[in-house]
Amino acid sequence: MSKYCFGIDVGGTTVKCGLFSTDGEALEKWEIPTRTEDNGKNILPDVAQAINGKIQERDLDKEKIAGIGIGVPGPVNDEGEVPVAVNLHWGRVHIVNEMEALTGLKVKAGNDANVAALGELWKGGGVGYHNMIMVTLGTGVGGGIIINDKILAGSHGAAGEIGHAHAEDAVKDPCNCGNCGCLEQLASATGIVRLAKEELAASTDASMLREGEVSAKTVFDAVKAGDDLAIRIAERFGKYLGEALAIFACVVDPEVFVIGGGVSKAGPILLDYIQKYYREYAFTACKDAAFALATLGNDAGIFGAAKMVL
Amino acid sequence: MSKYCFGIDVGGTTVKCGLFSTDGEALEKWEIPTRTEDNGKNILPDVAQAINGKIQERDLDKEKIAGIGIGVPGPVNDEGEVPVAVNLHWGRVHIVNEMEALTGLKVKAGNDANVAALGELWKGGGVGYHNMIMVTLGTGVGGGIIINDKILAGSHGAAGEIGHAHAEDAVKDPCNCGNCGCLEQLASATGIVRLAKEELAASTDASMLREGEVSAKTVFDAVKAGDDLAIRIAERFGKYLGEALAIFACVVDPEVFVIGGGVSKAGPILLDYIQKYYREYAFTACKDAAFALATLGNDAGIFGAAKMVL
Repeated sequence: MSKYCFGIDVGGTTVKCGLFSTDGEALEKWEIPTRTEDNGKNILPDVAQAINGKIQERDLDKEKIAGIGIGVPGPVNDEGEVPVAVNLHWGRVHIVNEMEALTGLKVKAGNDANVAALGELWKGGGVGYHNMIMVTLGTGVGGGIIINDKILAGSHGAAGEIGHAHAEDAVKDPCNCGNCGCLEQLASATGIVRLAKEELAASTDASMLREGEVSAKTVFDAVKAGDDLAIRIAERFGKYLGEALAIFACVVDPEVFVIGGGVSKAGPILLDYIQKYYREYAFTACKDAAFALATLGNDAGIFGAAKMVL
Repeated sequence: MSKYCFGIDVGGTTVKCGLFSTDGEALEKWEIPTRTEDNGKNILPDVAQAINGKIQERDLDKEKIAGIGIGVPGPVNDEGEVPVAVNLHWGRVHIVNEMEALTGLKVKAGNDANVAALGELWKGGGVGYHNMIMVTLGTGVGGGIIINDKILAGSHGAAGEIGHAHAEDAVKDPCNCGNCGCLEQLASATGIVRLAKEELAASTDASMLREGEVSAKTVFDAVKAGDDLAIRIAERFGKYLGEALAIFACVVDPEVFVIGGGVSKAGPILLDYIQKYYREYAFTACKDAAFALATLGNDAGIFGAAKMVL
């Protein structure tokens, strides 16, 4: 019977590594640099070396290792192949084949946002649920869809790319994806700054936000202090995101939405604004979906990666 | 090895029945009335009698029957239980348990719209694909989500209820679901009539649509005849539906959209208007999703039901 598994989260600058027990205890966590030079050809060999080294160091019985899960920043198909991963300087890479050859262990690979969603389901904000939409509010808006405890990858590896759902016709400047009016342009950390600038320009009302640099954090700090203008920004944010999540619920009907990423550090008040509009727009049967904050932070990726091989 | 299966589509007035070979040939189709009196307690016994009678009539070997699939107008959970089905006058009914007891055959049950989607995937507009969003444009807008050849039911049986995605803040009269501005209010047959009335009232432009009753059919007939006002209606319809489908694609990333229901009788021109806006709003990776018309018409339900047990 397996006792261990590895969870790997490959980022653009560092690779997070985790050794887990199969019941989900993180036994050890460490990082190695991501060497993106030469089209990132060293990345997987470096990861393999880190894992093989750890097995040797701890004198682990290979028979008792369930395998290695790997999350990468790019689309990954069901066979564990990546067509391209810009941040890693990768063209087509068959992660599973390459890593299995380098380690002799079973390997599974997935998109990092999807893998993080699985981590939150396993040991984070989504514990106890089986069907989830994860929403990551950072510089952009990421997502991951979990159906019956499994990642939904989609036919182009683009399932859960909820940040690029169209949300506003009035936005005329392009998103990083090339379209205009994406949810990411309105409900991410940068989207909240956009809404703040619009509200600050639209009136001369007094506000804490008129002093210093505006960020998602200063907006929600001001909301907590009762600042009326900041509350108007939070309402607009909540309407864009809550309405979008209600639309997504008509498609996959999840049990729970788990909200993570830097913006989620604002805490439960963030959920209040999202849920208010979610309940307004959701289809009757879906109105009672649960909302929770993510709890694993940057470790969600290694947890989810480990879970993939179990 | 199994040679036969039954596909049953329970509607509010008639039950469609089909006997199929396991490779999907419809060997016989017939109908029986749906007896909704006494809380619909006779419906499943009537269906069982129809099947048992057919087995006797054709002297089929029960060992060679893979089972019975049943689609019903209501939410169905993974165990084949319905909490309520208004059109059948049903409260809670455990279809699978009851039908297995009545027939001694394996039974699977699903929501009728989802089951019809599976039918179109198996033998209709979605042949050759494995991941699909089915859109049924009738009096309302229905849907069904197929992931890896399987129906996605959702945690409340509400996955694929895409007609109730919010699509327009300006609509202030309520949808049948109680919300306002649902996609169904804009892109169904009745939604197209709504758009037509708005366009007819907004100008005095000459149009074929100013004579006689307006319907989805007369609108698309006028579009085909080059009627400018009708084309404006079709553009608005296409924007509402194409944009919504692009949003849905960010969630599940399907290979194909199959469009069925009465409105789809307008033919390929309907797809042109939908795709134009889909391509505009879709996330890069999803822009090349295929579009097809449904081909099975009212038989989609019995085909999909049969497929469920294979």
